[in-house]
Amino acid sequence: MNVSIPDSEFKERVTKVQRIMAEKKVDTLLAFSTEAEPAYGRYFADYWPSFETTAVLIPASGDAVLLIGPESLTYARSRSRIERIMQLEDFRESSQPEYPGAVLPTWHDVFAEFLTEHLGIAGWHTFPHAIYEHVREGLGNGDVVPADDVVRPVMVRKSEAEIRCLRESARLSEIGLEAVLDNIKPGMTEIQVVGIATAAMLEHGAEATGYPIWCCSGPNSTQAISRPTHKKIKKGEIVHLQLGAKVSGYSTSIARPVVLGSCTDEMRRFLQVGYQAENMAIDLMQSGTRASEVARKVHGWIADQGYGDTILYGPAHGCGQMECEWPFVETSTEVVLEPNMTFQVDVFLAKPEMGFRWEDSIVVRDGPAEQLSSLRREVIVL
Amino acid sequence: MNVSIPDSEFKERVTKVQRIMAEKKVDTLLAFSTEAEPAYGRYFADYWPSFETTAVLIPASGDAVLLIGPESLTYARSRSRIERIMQLEDFRESSQPEYPGAVLPTWHDVFAEFLTEHLGIAGWHTFPHAIYEHVREGLGNGDVVPADDVVRPVMVRKSEAEIRCLRESARLSEIGLEAVLDNIKPGMTEIQVVGIATAAMLEHGAEATGYPIWCCSGPNSTQAISRPTHKKIKKGEIVHLQLGAKVSGYSTSIARPVVLGSCTDEMRRFLQVGYQAENMAIDLMQSGTRASEVARKVHGWIADQGYGDTILYGPAHGCGQMECEWPFVETSTEVVLEPNMTFQVDVFLAKPEMGFRWEDSIVVRDGPAEQLSSLRREVIVL
Repeated sequence: MNVSIPDSEFKERVTKVQRIMAEKKVDTLLAFSTEAEPAYGRYFADYWPSFETTAVLIPASGDAVLLIGPESLTYARSRSRIERIMQLEDFRESSQPEYPGAVLPTWHDVFAEFLTEHLGIAGWHTFPHAIYEHVREGLGNGDVVPADDVVRPVMVRKSEAEIRCLRESARLSEIGLEAVLDNIKPGMTEIQVVGIATAAMLEHGAEATGYPIWCCSGPNSTQAISRPTHKKIKKGEIVHLQLGAKVSGYSTSIARPVVLGSCTDEMRRFLQVGYQAENMAIDLMQSGTRASEVARKVHGWIADQGYGDTILYGPAHGCGQMECEWPFVETSTEVVLEPNMTFQVDVFLAKPEMGFRWEDSIVVRDGPAEQLSSLRREVIVL
Repeated sequence: MNVSIPDSEFKERVTKVQRIMAEKKVDTLLAFSTEAEPAYGRYFADYWPSFETTAVLIPASGDAVLLIGPESLTYARSRSRIERIMQLEDFRESSQPEYPGAVLPTWHDVFAEFLTEHLGIAGWHTFPHAIYEHVREGLGNGDVVPADDVVRPVMVRKSEAEIRCLRESARLSEIGLEAVLDNIKPGMTEIQVVGIATAAMLEHGAEATGYPIWCCSGPNSTQAISRPTHKKIKKGEIVHLQLGAKVSGYSTSIARPVVLGSCTDEMRRFLQVGYQAENMAIDLMQSGTRASEVARKVHGWIADQGYGDTILYGPAHGCGQMECEWPFVETSTEVVLEPNMTFQVDVFLAKPEMGFRWEDSIVVRDGPAEQLSSLRREVIVL
C-alpha cells in the first residue's frame, strides 16, 4: 500500500511556519537536513539528501526554495515538492569535490534576493559551523537565531495523512519483526537477523529502514543504542530486536525482546516489568496529560518493582519524520499531550548483564491512545 | 570471512597524527563524526555512532579519548579501541533529551585537563555550529582551526590490513550485485532490488551497506545521487545498480548498468563509452601520475566520442572509511598518486533521458593498479 502526503499539505506547512516566523520576527528560515537527519528536508520538500546535505529556505511570504548540492539536481527534481531548486557548493559531499567549471550561486546571491534582518536556522544542533560562517558573510548586517522552535509547533501535531504514513510504517515494521520470529535460529549472526528484517520490509513496501535498525543479544542486549555485530545468537540469552520501516518519510519502530530455548525466572520477571511499564505509559498518554507526569509515574512504578537503577531515559519520545523526534517524554518535560501528537512508547531497561527494549507507536487521541501496531506485548520464548 | 584492523594500528594512527599536529602547531585535535559521516570515529576508535554523534580527542601526546553522547556508553564500550570514554551532552541525539539527573562533564572540564592554545577540528565541514560555540566557551583564550589536513595525509595511504577490509568489501559488493542479476525481473520495484542486494551482502558477512545504496531505472537513471523508489523496472530501460558493502568500517562500491530485454544501438554505444572510459582511467591510475592528468585525459576522450556534455564530475574519488572520501580525481586535483592510495573509479554519464554509472575499486600500486573486484565490464543485457 503506497501512502503519501498530498502536495497541498506541503504548501500548508510552509504557510503555517510563515505565521510563526512573523510572530517571532524571523524574516527568513533555513531548515537544514542531512542524510542521517532528514526531518526538515522531507517535511517541507519531500527531499532526502544522500552524500550531500540540504536546506529549505522559507521566506517571510511566498514560495519556499530547496537548496541542494552540486550532484543532486536530477534526483531532487524527481522528488521535490518545492518547485524552485538552487544548488550551492556548501551542500556538497564531505569529500569536497571542486567541480571545476561549475558556476553556482553563493550566499550573497541568496540574501540579495531574500533580504533578511533576522535569519532563523532550524536544525540548529546539526548546522555546520563552516556553512554558518559563509551564511553570516552573505547575510551582511542581519543576525542569526536558532529557530527549531518556529517549526516544532507545526510538526508536532500530525495530520491524518501523516498518521496514515505512520500506521503503514508500523504495519511494515511488524512484518519485519514477524519475518525474524519465523526465521531466527541459534547460530545466526545479529547482522543476518537485520538482513532478514530489512529484506522483508523492503519487499512489502517500505522505502527504507527508518534508522540503522539492530539486533543485539546476550551481553550486547544492554546497549540502549546499538548496531548489529557478527556475534552468533545463542539459546537462553535475551535477543533484543529493534526494527522500523520508513514510509514516505515517516518512521516508527517496534522493539521486542525474544529468548530462544528457555527463559530463567529472573529474566522473565525483568521482561514483564518492561512490558507492564509500557502498558502503563500507553494508558497514561491521553490528551491533557503533562508529559512529565507520565514519566514520573512510570519510572516510579519501575522503581517500586525494584528496577529503578535499570532506567536510562524515557519512557517515550516523539516520532514522525524521525523515529525519535522532539519532544522526549521525561520527568522534566512540561509539554502537555494533545490529540494527534505521535509517540514511540519506549521502555529500555538494562542491568549490567542483560537489557531489553519494548517499543510501540501510538497516536494521542481524546480518550485512550490509538496503538499503531497490533502485536501483543508478552514474553516471547521460541 | 571476518577481517579487521589490529589494535596496534589504531595506536599507530594516533601517533602519526600527533607528529603532524606538532608540525602544524595543533595542541589538541577533535575529529568529529556522525551516523552518516562516520570516517574519523571508525578510523581512530572503531566507533560508529547511531542517533548520537561523536568526536575523538587527540592530545599533543599520550592516549586519545573517545567523546560520546549520553545513551551510547555500553555500545561504545563494546566497540571502542580507545580505552577512555567521556560522555558529553553535546553529542546527544537531535531530539535533544535532557536526561534529568544525569551529571556529565562539560567542555570546561575537557579543556581544564587538556590545556589547549590551538585546537584543530577535523570534520570541519560537518562540525555543528552549536557545539563549536560551546567548545569556544570551554576553550577560553585558545583558537580554533580547521584540521582535516592534519588527518588526511595519514588516512590517504592504506595499510595492508585496510586493503584486506576493502578487498572483502568489494567481494561482498559483488555478491550483492550477483544476487540482483540472478533475481531481477520486470515488474520488481527499485526498492525490492535494493532489499535483495542488502540481504545478500548481510547474509555473507557485510556489517552494513556502505552508504544508502540504490537501484534507479529509466528516467531515474539520470540521477548521479539517488535513492530507490517504488517505480517498477521495465524492459528496455537502463537499470542503474549502485551497491556497496561495509566491512570493519571500510566501504567500496560497485556500479553496473543493466538492460532487461533488448538494448538499442544508441544505448549500447553510450554504455560502451562509459566502461571504456573506466578502463582508461584504471590504466592511467599508476603511482607517480598526477590526478588532474587522469581526469583531463579521460574527460577529453569522452568528449572526443561526442559525450562531453554528459559528464558531471570525476572520473574517480578516494575510498576507505567512506565510500567517497578525499581526494576526488578532477581536472583541478594536483595530488600525485602514490602506492596504497585506494580509489573508486567512477564514471557517471547522463543525457537528459538516460544515464548510468560504471564503478569499481582499485589500489594504486607501482605499475598497474590492483583491481578489487573481478566482475567484467561489459554491457549486461538480461
